[in-house]
Amino acid sequence: MGKRKSHRKKERIKYSSIHQVPGQVTYVGSKTSEVPSVEIINYNKERVDKVHSQNVEDAFNFNKEETITWINVNGLNHTKEIEKLGKHYNLHPLILEDIVNTQQRPKIDDYDDYMFIVLKMLYYDEHNEFVNEHLSIAVGKNYILTFQEADGDVFDGVRERIQNARGRIRNSGSDYLMYALIDAVIDSYFTIIETMAEKIEVIEDSLFLENPEEGITQDIQDLKREILKIRRSVFPLREVISRLEKSDHELIDQKTNSYLRDLYDHIVQISENIEIYREMTWGLMDMYMTTISNKMNEVMKVLTIMASIFIPLTFMAGIYGMNFEHIPELHLKYGYLYFWIVLIIVFLGMIWYFKRKKWL
Amino acid sequence: MGKRKSHRKKERIKYSSIHQVPGQVTYVGSKTSEVPSVEIINYNKERVDKVHSQNVEDAFNFNKEETITWINVNGLNHTKEIEKLGKHYNLHPLILEDIVNTQQRPKIDDYDDYMFIVLKMLYYDEHNEFVNEHLSIAVGKNYILTFQEADGDVFDGVRERIQNARGRIRNSGSDYLMYALIDAVIDSYFTIIETMAEKIEVIEDSLFLENPEEGITQDIQDLKREILKIRRSVFPLREVISRLEKSDHELIDQKTNSYLRDLYDHIVQISENIEIYREMTWGLMDMYMTTISNKMNEVMKVLTIMASIFIPLTFMAGIYGMNFEHIPELHLKYGYLYFWIVLIIVFLGMIWYFKRKKWL
Amino acid sequence: MGKRKSHRKKERIKYSSIHQVPGQVTYVGSKTSEVPSVEIINYNKERVDKVHSQNVEDAFNFNKEETITWINVNGLNHTKEIEKLGKHYNLHPLILEDIVNTQQRPKIDDYDDYMFIVLKMLYYDEHNEFVNEHLSIAVGKNYILTFQEADGDVFDGVRERIQNARGRIRNSGSDYLMYALIDAVIDSYFTIIETMAEKIEVIEDSLFLENPEEGITQDIQDLKREILKIRRSVFPLREVISRLEKSDHELIDQKTNSYLRDLYDHIVQISENIEIYREMTWGLMDMYMTTISNKMNEVMKVLTIMASIFIPLTFMAGIYGMNFEHIPELHLKYGYLYFWIVLIIVFLGMIWYFKRKKWL
Amino acid sequence: MGKRKSHRKKERIKYSSIHQVPGQVTYVGSKTSEVPSVEIINYNKERVDKVHSQNVEDAFNFNKEETITWINVNGLNHTKEIEKLGKHYNLHPLILEDIVNTQQRPKIDDYDDYMFIVLKMLYYDEHNEFVNEHLSIAVGKNYILTFQEADGDVFDGVRERIQNARGRIRNSGSDYLMYALIDAVIDSYFTIIETMAEKIEVIEDSLFLENPEEGITQDIQDLKREILKIRRSVFPLREVISRLEKSDHELIDQKTNSYLRDLYDHIVQISENIEIYREMTWGLMDMYMTTISNKMNEVMKVLTIMASIFIPLTFMAGIYGMNFEHIPELHLKYGYLYFWIVLIIVFLGMIWYFKRKKWL
Amino acid sequence: MGKRKSHRKKERIKYSSIHQVPGQVTYVGSKTSEVPSVEIINYNKERVDKVHSQNVEDAFNFNKEETITWINVNGLNHTKEIEKLGKHYNLHPLILEDIVNTQQRPKIDDYDDYMFIVLKMLYYDEHNEFVNEHLSIAVGKNYILTFQEADGDVFDGVRERIQNARGRIRNSGSDYLMYALIDAVIDSYFTIIETMAEKIEVIEDSLFLENPEEGITQDIQDLKREILKIRRSVFPLREVISRLEKSDHELIDQKTNSYLRDLYDHIVQISENIEIYREMTWGLMDMYMTTISNKMNEVMKVLTIMASIFIPLTFMAGIYGMNFEHIPELHLKYGYLYFWIVLIIVFLGMIWYFKRKKWL
Repeated sequence: MGKRKSHRKKERIKYSSIHQVPGQVTYVGSKTSEVPSVEIINYNKERVDKVHSQNVEDAFNFNKEETITWINVNGLNHTKEIEKLGKHYNLHPLILEDIVNTQQRPKIDDYDDYMFIVLKMLYYDEHNEFVNEHLSIAVGKNYILTFQEADGDVFDGVRERIQNARGRIRNSGSDYLMYALIDAVIDSYFTIIETMAEKIEVIEDSLFLENPEEGITQDIQDLKREILKIRRSVFPLREVISRLEKSDHELIDQKTNSYLRDLYDHIVQISENIEIYREMTWGLMDMYMTTISNKMNEVMKVLTIMASIFIPLTFMAGIYGMNFEHIPELHLKYGYLYFWIVLIIVFLGMIWYFKRKKWL
Repeated sequence: MGKRKSHRKKERIKYSSIHQVPGQVTYVGSKTSEVPSVEIINYNKERVDKVHSQNVEDAFNFNKEETITWINVNGLNHTKEIEKLGKHYNLHPLILEDIVNTQQRPKIDDYDDYMFIVLKMLYYDEHNEFVNEHLSIAVGKNYILTFQEADGDVFDGVRERIQNARGRIRNSGSDYLMYALIDAVIDSYFTIIETMAEKIEVIEDSLFLENPEEGITQDIQDLKREILKIRRSVFPLREVISRLEKSDHELIDQKTNSYLRDLYDHIVQISENIEIYREMTWGLMDMYMTTISNKMNEVMKVLTIMASIFIPLTFMAGIYGMNFEHIPELHLKYGYLYFWIVLIIVFLGMIWYFKRKKWL
Repeated sequence: MGKRKSHRKKERIKYSSIHQVPGQVTYVGSKTSEVPSVEIINYNKERVDKVHSQNVEDAFNFNKEETITWINVNGLNHTKEIEKLGKHYNLHPLILEDIVNTQQRPKIDDYDDYMFIVLKMLYYDEHNEFVNEHLSIAVGKNYILTFQEADGDVFDGVRERIQNARGRIRNSGSDYLMYALIDAVIDSYFTIIETMAEKIEVIEDSLFLENPEEGITQDIQDLKREILKIRRSVFPLREVISRLEKSDHELIDQKTNSYLRDLYDHIVQISENIEIYREMTWGLMDMYMTTISNKMNEVMKVLTIMASIFIPLTFMAGIYGMNFEHIPELHLKYGYLYFWIVLIIVFLGMIWYFKRKKWL
Repeated sequence: MGKRKSHRKKERIKYSSIHQVPGQVTYVGSKTSEVPSVEIINYNKERVDKVHSQNVEDAFNFNKEETITWINVNGLNHTKEIEKLGKHYNLHPLILEDIVNTQQRPKIDDYDDYMFIVLKMLYYDEHNEFVNEHLSIAVGKNYILTFQEADGDVFDGVRERIQNARGRIRNSGSDYLMYALIDAVIDSYFTIIETMAEKIEVIEDSLFLENPEEGITQDIQDLKREILKIRRSVFPLREVISRLEKSDHELIDQKTNSYLRDLYDHIVQISENIEIYREMTWGLMDMYMTTISNKMNEVMKVLTIMASIFIPLTFMAGIYGMNFEHIPELHLKYGYLYFWIVLIIVFLGMIWYFKRKKWL
Repeated sequence: MGKRKSHRKKERIKYSSIHQVPGQVTYVGSKTSEVPSVEIINYNKERVDKVHSQNVEDAFNFNKEETITWINVNGLNHTKEIEKLGKHYNLHPLILEDIVNTQQRPKIDDYDDYMFIVLKMLYYDEHNEFVNEHLSIAVGKNYILTFQEADGDVFDGVRERIQNARGRIRNSGSDYLMYALIDAVIDSYFTIIETMAEKIEVIEDSLFLENPEEGITQDIQDLKREILKIRRSVFPLREVISRLEKSDHELIDQKTNSYLRDLYDHIVQISENIEIYREMTWGLMDMYMTTISNKMNEVMKVLTIMASIFIPLTFMAGIYGMNFEHIPELHLKYGYLYFWIVLIIVFLGMIWYFKRKKWL
């Protein structure tokens, strides 16, 4: 249990260190990287350019009307670089704060010439720990900026489609790229849901073992906590996407709308599944309680059977251990035999009684 | 329990394999058929034509103004055929995706010249397993397309009415046929509700047996899961039908509206019943808990009665088993008799005490 | 328990037999009568006519402008007669279906020249079984049609007021008669609420008996079910009456509005009471659980006291029952006396201990 | 418990006797007085007149434009007098019905030239029984009528302020008097909340006593019932006051509005407190359950310790009570001493074991 | 437990003493100071003046157009001084009442030329007691008045920023200062949330100790109470800030709006965290219950094992302690040895049985 506890401790964020001065860009997350990793993909119908750099300035060359530029920054602890990018693309100071504030909940902010979306990548890392990674997306006329906490994301499918010009992506604007990115994130939630279902199943199964380990209460409580956290990351997204769909921002093309509606369907479906697993998890504690009680019942039965059978027999033996001068039975020739016969009859009677009660 | 578990495993869908690329038509369900089964019913006031085929192209001949064509496709794994049909009837790529995505929740999408509805057929199959079959309906001016996972459906009544010109169906437009199809689906939900009621009753009754099998906790948990799934399939339908009723799509005739309102009444009634059974099911765990506790009480009583009666008696026997040199009682002529008299009095006293306490 | 179960079985309706073909009038209730009973009351300010018949055609003579005609039909299995009446008064086919579908929930439908209201009469019959009787009211300019499942209703007060011209009823239109009828139904709900309160009280009291019968869990579960059903019959009525009050249908006179508002107050009051009793009932299971646990505690205490007192004493007796050659105490002159003194001291010590612990 | 039960019985109202004929003024409450008590306070900026009478007609003299007349009637069983007053002030018949129907929930009705408000005075009487007294207020241009069930109310502060011209009351219209009266009622709710908090505390504390009396389950259930009733009396008031505040009735002066908003703040605050106490009360049953279980644990520990220590010792004594011819230990010189040494070692071992397990 | 109880008693406020006469300024809080402490900060872009005084009149000199004056009053028991200030700044009498009514819930009132906001500072004092301090803010064109119960607040960061002209604060109007103050309060809530998380963790961990102290039930109940109180202080703030953000009061500059939206994000985030911790806390009682039951299971197992092993053995010893004349086994040469062999076999059999059952 030591491990479990220490994990929980580590995970807790010092909320109180967040946002000391409004507009000040301070990173509060736990993941850091030594150098920022900037990945620039610049494309239009005809061509794709791909650049990896540690320097955000490299991105500024691509900012032209006729192409779409996707700049992906990994490593939110490099606040300087992010501020440079923010200045170049004219982002509001509070947005820069939101980009590095990993505690920010999913939201969407409309500005005149760009939109800003915050969402969460949820996954289980190699140690099977639940990870909640902060992701910010700023969408402009012909650029998209994405900011992640660390390397490794769910966008490989999107990159591949850009590279190979699969689907509509190369022929569409930055709004479709935005859609494709959010879609990739939401699709990755389905894995979370599968893991949740598996966890519930594991606990349910272990509840029927002879001796479920005691830590199971803590496991259930931890699962509750996890589900509540996932809910908090997923549910606000419903409103974000609903607002995106209903938005009349000039960035959103009419054709993209049906894709956004599809996205909304997906996020509602995920939310419903979370609610179902939530109800199931809340029921696990009751299941455990009945399991414990059933076990206690069984223990009690063993005790009761043993005691009920032998206590009367011991009493009988006690009778004939008495030292009264005149106990006629003691002097019978077959007294001891008779005693055993009676004893066995009593014994069988008890056995029969417990059999009838279905305790044996 | 092995069986139960393996069933649950099988049923779980790999959500993560859904919707890899937007607009790509990939079937994710578990049911497959070797050849697609296409059933075409073409009718108007005067005549009915009925064709069975494995080829969707056969349907395109019927697409004329003066008749209504109902094309029913069984087997969603034949995505090629579905795409052909989609192309002919000019359906949006995302709709084709929804047709084969069996995880899609019930919904309605309005397009300019057609409507698209997703719902679920719920039934128990021959093995008494709960089945949730995906059904999509596309309604146009003079055609209806329906897509099902497998052969066998709830539309036989509708087919018969078309064949025999019973009711208003032959004199009405495609909107009335759509109504008749949805109505058939919703009517079939009543069977589900009956089964639910039966299952609850079976569990309730088994809770009062002497020894309910332990697996009952799992049964209750499974029933909860089932109800939650049914809810998820049924509840969104309320909004679908409400939107259908309030829709001012030119496809929906004024006269069909009161039928749709009737449909809405039915779906609300089903939802209310589900909620009632849900509350009853959630109460079952408490019932089971009291049942266990009552049983333990009974076990404890047996133990307490046995122990309370015989422990004092054994003590008395022990007293006169002692080897003190001077125990006057031992030398009384009727000592042993007196002992038995006292013993029987004590015994009867205990019996009386427990009788008074109503434990016997 | 056999009786209880069979009752529950009987009560369950085959939902699946409802509404096979839209617009087809099929009775699904359980009550039937051999002949329909039609009661016609025709009145205006000056006079009242009252006719009992088995023939609905008798009612058609009264349909004149200057009087109000109330036609009450008992026996929904006589669908033929109901269809005749429907045809005469020009009712929509779906309304006829609703009249005989006893599963239809409370609702109101507005038509151009009449209104149609469905509600439920709730009462306990002579066998103290909860009865949910279907009642439909069609209100036109100068007529009211009411349809009931069986003889016997809550309208005797209304009949008497018409007969004796008490209150405003003879001077008002069909809307006031409609109000008076609904008012009579809702007033009868108060009896249901009283019975509910009584039932909760009976269970609460029996929970404090020495030995509540085990069936009490089932009683609580049944009461839950009953309350849920009552809720389902009563709650939709709030919306029905609210819509009636806000309706601008020409049938509803301005003056009737404040009466309808009063009705709304009543139905809200009933709903609130149901919710309170619901919460109380849901708490009963917890109460029962604590009762069981308290009883077990008491059983355990008896066992513990008996065992704790006699086990050490028996041990002491055992000591001096040993056959060691040299046990000095055995040879003391007053050894046996001393033994008893020690024994009584130990005994009193245990008693004192348990008294201090308040177990005795 | 007899007392408690009889109290509950008494309190239950025969709902079914309410409102037999619409508009008929029948008192259903339990409090009655022999003569009506009418108190008239007539005031304006310059003077105050105060009259006590048993005759409502005495009030009619004061009905003048230039003063505000407050007529307070105690004793709702004098329906005749109330009808006289109603006729004089031209009140709607349904209002008269509401005045004497003590089951009417809080509400507000707007009429052209007056407003009618129903609310509840809640207090604990001298026997510490919860009392829910019905209060109706009718407010006209220059008069206010208040109707109470019995003598004794919360308006003494208001009377004193009128008498001594303290605050704005003498300079303001009937709307401010209405505000002052409702304010006095709502202020009195704070006492109810204090009592609730105290009751919860008393139960919580008694749960930690060695032996909470068993009736505590009933106490908790009764407290739940009380809180639910208080909620029912208080919560509708939120809407009443909100509507009063937003009302544009000509009776309500602009200046009174901020006072009404203040009132709304108070009622929301009270509602929130009720909800908190409700949650606390609902948690009490769980607390009690753990208390019982803890006690049972303790009982079990005593039993287990006693049995575990003495059963092996008794067994040992039994061994040397056997009559085998050749038991070598029996013939050892210090056999009895050795026996005691082993016995004490076993005894101390058990004690050490239980100490280590923290059971001792 | 004595301490805990007395603390709770102290904390409870006599609600009933609040607001006896409308508009009368009576302090009801528990904190008092001998002299009022007035702190005046007067600043504009160029300069800052800072004055500490015991006299509110000192503030009136600063009230000029070209600077912003922040007057902070500590000590709400000095109602006289507050009334002076209120008169000077022309505040409504009901506002003065709200300033000193520490029971007032968070709210916002718009007046023509100023806004009035009530909120709560939440913190744990040096004795680790939860403190809920009342804070009122009145915002005018070029002044801000803040009223606190006692010295010590969360505004030191704001003071420092004004002093050192850090951030936008010196260049902005009174609306930005208002934002900065509310922001400081809300930021301090994060500490509360951290403490809550810690408390839950402490309880969870102590539930897994061998012997959780019994007071833990009370701790959980107290934590529930605390969370409910925090909720009550925090949740209304959501609406306050939402209304502030949407307000079109001329005081609120366009540029401040995005800061207010940021504030709203924070308060929603805090609310969500509170809800999560609330759910976790509500689950603690169930966890405790299973912990108790598990412990009881363990106790029962020890008893059952001891009893089941030694009761049969004692019976065997009893058999050969009998005094029958003819018990052949007693006279066997190795009878006693054989007896021990059988006894050890039985003993090992029982041990094996319990090992197989995993009880050992």
